[in-house]
Amino acid sequence: MSKKLSWVLTDTAKRVYVENCTLGATALGMDKDGAWTITKSRLRGGLSDGVDIIEVNNGQLSFTIVPTRGMGLWRGSCGGHAIGWNSPARDLVNPGFINTLEQGGLGWLKGFNECIVRCGLNSNGAPGMDTVLDNNGNPSEVMLTLHGNIANIPAKYVEVEVIPGTPTELVITGVVEESRCFCPQYRMVCRYSTFVGSNKVSIRDEVSNFADCPTEFQMLYHCNFGEPFLEEGAKIVLPAAEVAPRDPRAQEDIDTWDSYRGYEPGYVEQGYYLDVAADAQGRTLSMLKNRASTLGVVIRWDKSQLPSFCQWKHTTGASEGYVTGMEPSINMPNLKSFERQKGRVLTLQPGQTYAIDLAMEIAGDAKAVAAVEAEVAAIMAGRKTTVQQQPVAKWSPCAN
Amino acid sequence: MSKKLSWVLTDTAKRVYVENCTLGATALGMDKDGAWTITKSRLRGGLSDGVDIIEVNNGQLSFTIVPTRGMGLWRGSCGGHAIGWNSPARDLVNPGFINTLEQGGLGWLKGFNECIVRCGLNSNGAPGMDTVLDNNGNPSEVMLTLHGNIANIPAKYVEVEVIPGTPTELVITGVVEESRCFCPQYRMVCRYSTFVGSNKVSIRDEVSNFADCPTEFQMLYHCNFGEPFLEEGAKIVLPAAEVAPRDPRAQEDIDTWDSYRGYEPGYVEQGYYLDVAADAQGRTLSMLKNRASTLGVVIRWDKSQLPSFCQWKHTTGASEGYVTGMEPSINMPNLKSFERQKGRVLTLQPGQTYAIDLAMEIAGDAKAVAAVEAEVAAIMAGRKTTVQQQPVAKWSPCAN
Amino acid sequence: MSKKLSWVLTDTAKRVYVENCTLGATALGMDKDGAWTITKSRLRGGLSDGVDIIEVNNGQLSFTIVPTRGMGLWRGSCGGHAIGWNSPARDLVNPGFINTLEQGGLGWLKGFNECIVRCGLNSNGAPGMDTVLDNNGNPSEVMLTLHGNIANIPAKYVEVEVIPGTPTELVITGVVEESRCFCPQYRMVCRYSTFVGSNKVSIRDEVSNFADCPTEFQMLYHCNFGEPFLEEGAKIVLPAAEVAPRDPRAQEDIDTWDSYRGYEPGYVEQGYYLDVAADAQGRTLSMLKNRASTLGVVIRWDKSQLPSFCQWKHTTGASEGYVTGMEPSINMPNLKSFERQKGRVLTLQPGQTYAIDLAMEIAGDAKAVAAVEAEVAAIMAGRKTTVQQQPVAKWSPCAN
Repeated sequence: MSKKLSWVLTDTAKRVYVENCTLGATALGMDKDGAWTITKSRLRGGLSDGVDIIEVNNGQLSFTIVPTRGMGLWRGSCGGHAIGWNSPARDLVNPGFINTLEQGGLGWLKGFNECIVRCGLNSNGAPGMDTVLDNNGNPSEVMLTLHGNIANIPAKYVEVEVIPGTPTELVITGVVEESRCFCPQYRMVCRYSTFVGSNKVSIRDEVSNFADCPTEFQMLYHCNFGEPFLEEGAKIVLPAAEVAPRDPRAQEDIDTWDSYRGYEPGYVEQGYYLDVAADAQGRTLSMLKNRASTLGVVIRWDKSQLPSFCQWKHTTGASEGYVTGMEPSINMPNLKSFERQKGRVLTLQPGQTYAIDLAMEIAGDAKAVAAVEAEVAAIMAGRKTTVQQQPVAKWSPCAN
Repeated sequence: MSKKLSWVLTDTAKRVYVENCTLGATALGMDKDGAWTITKSRLRGGLSDGVDIIEVNNGQLSFTIVPTRGMGLWRGSCGGHAIGWNSPARDLVNPGFINTLEQGGLGWLKGFNECIVRCGLNSNGAPGMDTVLDNNGNPSEVMLTLHGNIANIPAKYVEVEVIPGTPTELVITGVVEESRCFCPQYRMVCRYSTFVGSNKVSIRDEVSNFADCPTEFQMLYHCNFGEPFLEEGAKIVLPAAEVAPRDPRAQEDIDTWDSYRGYEPGYVEQGYYLDVAADAQGRTLSMLKNRASTLGVVIRWDKSQLPSFCQWKHTTGASEGYVTGMEPSINMPNLKSFERQKGRVLTLQPGQTYAIDLAMEIAGDAKAVAAVEAEVAAIMAGRKTTVQQQPVAKWSPCAN
Repeated sequence: MSKKLSWVLTDTAKRVYVENCTLGATALGMDKDGAWTITKSRLRGGLSDGVDIIEVNNGQLSFTIVPTRGMGLWRGSCGGHAIGWNSPARDLVNPGFINTLEQGGLGWLKGFNECIVRCGLNSNGAPGMDTVLDNNGNPSEVMLTLHGNIANIPAKYVEVEVIPGTPTELVITGVVEESRCFCPQYRMVCRYSTFVGSNKVSIRDEVSNFADCPTEFQMLYHCNFGEPFLEEGAKIVLPAAEVAPRDPRAQEDIDTWDSYRGYEPGYVEQGYYLDVAADAQGRTLSMLKNRASTLGVVIRWDKSQLPSFCQWKHTTGASEGYVTGMEPSINMPNLKSFERQKGRVLTLQPGQTYAIDLAMEIAGDAKAVAAVEAEVAAIMAGRKTTVQQQPVAKWSPCAN
């Protein structure tokens, strides 16, 4: 068998919708390189009612994609290690139950529990007012809510592909549109790929402006991990050319910015903004490793696509969302008006497509962790990280 | 066969709900005057998840009614011509995904893609603040969002009737309630009727105040059409006694108010307010015809029921919602407080029912278009349209 | 048969969901003490689309629990008497259709039609601004909407138990979580219990703080009744140690605070705040009885758990929600900032559980009504009710 197999699970334009299905290596006679499964389900009950999920298990790594929540990656597992975090929002939440305007624009938090969640596409970052043109062409004040809309828009198209090879490739593609009259029109095509038996899932997102006018564009990948990667003494390892505290709260612990503390109920989040170095091809990476350096989770991306980076520390109590975020992004997660002023809000021309490549992989033992550290060291090539003791004007509103 | 046949598809009070069904002339032995079908479906996936639609095809004209979206008419087709428009909001949107407060009160736009959408019932028009009495009888400032709530309330009752005759009549009736404690209580009964083989669909809406106190009432029929009716050189043809630009933006092109331009990315909408003349019985009409005058779409209504009219021009780029609206209404689509002051907000007494008749028909060739033009000329009876060069105080807030 | 039987109908953690089922005494061979049934259904269509209900009929008393709406008790029936009220919001409303921020924070009203609805858990009472710490630990102004969120959160776990005995006990348990990152984390376990053939349903709620920090907590039971209990001349009977009008509007009729008027279209609600006496064990009760004293509905609770009480009069027109509320609660339903200042906002420590017991029973004839009146008299033990002629500072913001 050598031809690509594909199944369309959702296509709103053609009224295709598959509520439940399971695809498996054995049933398809494709188990030469191991037993893999792809299961599509619809959740029922509670806040998850009507949420579609796709669970991919490549035999080594498993992860769950959520078409109903903007194609986010909910959580996974590799070699017995849970990937993701324990949010106080326990269940996947149907966007129908979410009001992003709640709580002064923090309503997005009601559904925030994914391992990888996209923030955008018209805006991301802190909530606050922005000035846009309304339908009459007049400047109008609108509330931009935390991290934008894309995580709460269900995919209009979902396809599964199985591509025979050595090894077999498993692909989930989804299309999400953030678009309405008098507003920007974005089409995002998300492609998740993993090879049977691997410890890695690769993402390629293509965001298009399908309007006839230019439009602004923001994107941030909120990649969140708790235990067992995060623990007291865990560290973030990445080729940091420069790091600065986001605000006075982060400044308190700038000297230990790259290491983590244990449970601390009542801990107030700390954010660090970074300039991450890359190799000659623009490739770079960030790893969260445990205290013993025997386990790590790695995010890889292309700095030419995602030039900014935020490290989010939230080492609070165990029940309150003990987590850290590694957030490669186009812009820093400040209010859009600030990012615009600093030149970090992109413009997409009509018909233009912006491609973003990102991957998550697990370093499952000391050797793998050391290899990633060597990669980081190679990019740094002996340079030292510039550590700013205070928030800096280019990145932080509070320094302006 | 001479008795009326009827099928209740939804009745929340009696817990009746039919997820999918198809009725057809042939199966019912009623195909003497042509093959017709009525299909009820529930959409799944994307933003359409859980949206119920009823597709009616009378053999000549087809159209889709959306119980989940306030009994709106999504789109249709007649003689191979698409009826409706291509909104950037591609799919029908379940009201559960809509937050009308978004974007400064323009959240309604997330679902705006219908051919005929009702705007009301407590308010319609531009978003803004209004003063109402709260549950304690105290004046309270509330946000009235763009075009009100009725388009985002699912019908609680849906019935299909097939009435044998020469020809057979196909009827879809839906009941939508906009009602809650301490608030106005409206019950809207919408009846769509079409005869087998005809080019016309008729609507009769009956809006009742089922509270024990008088209540205000607003209604506007947002009837929207793009290609092939709308194109460069297309014209609106109606018995305009008087026309005025809504604002300075519309004033720019007041001299060509009745004709349309081609694609113009970045075009800012233009609105014109009209006093439309009627015949002795109060009947009147408006047609959008193509450049060659070989195709038109006609809206008919009763001026005693809908005395106001707005023409909405949005001849933007092809991907951004190239469309025009013909909008017969009780009031002009300004902020309610302005309309109240001008005496265009109705009051419904307890138990009072307000009936509205409206029809859409297709003029499928030059002869049919000419016949409609003759109707319009007969109503005008030689009078000239008064064209106001500037916004006028009776209609436009900006002229006050 | 002596073992407890149980059926899990929803468990989002384990992906259990039963769409429809019926349990009955006869089928289970448990009809020695009468025919009872428990029916679980999922409503479809209209605003009720996707709402799960559980109808319990113990042979004498029937009532409907709504897992989708925070485990509220929608309505019931006993001896042919309807229990509940006719809200202008006729159908049960899926929380997905509700935007609590609407109408100046009164959006909760869109779904308000239950007989017993919980108000909380982070806040209840009148809408308005409060100051909380945001994710950065900074004071932030947020809108607290009418009566909080708990009534619009679907239960994540639902279980039915049948406990053999003399008589058999029927139990419905649901778990609702109000919880998100950077916010309080409440888990509410609601247990409804009724015995076969009885006229009573008992509720035990256990609300836990499952965060690692202390959190504020508010709770009010909005118990609402219309005809046949409420009518002209109906009275509320309870051991009122002190009663005061909430505001000038209530002050108008302070002299007749404990009796009710007939239909009065346009009636503006009146609220009275009470200190209700209790017996030595803290037990107390309130009854709404009809004019003839032949029918009553009784709410029983524990004053040590619910020290506050509000009587809500809304004797408006028959179509507009003719109803009264008996509202035992932790706090008075004022804006949270006022209640906090008066010391009526509770704090739950990490892991702390707050238990609340409440029951509703029907007094079906003059004798039963008289017996309840005797209970009330026994608690009062000859004391007179202190009737405040004006709002008092401890309870009413307007008196401060």
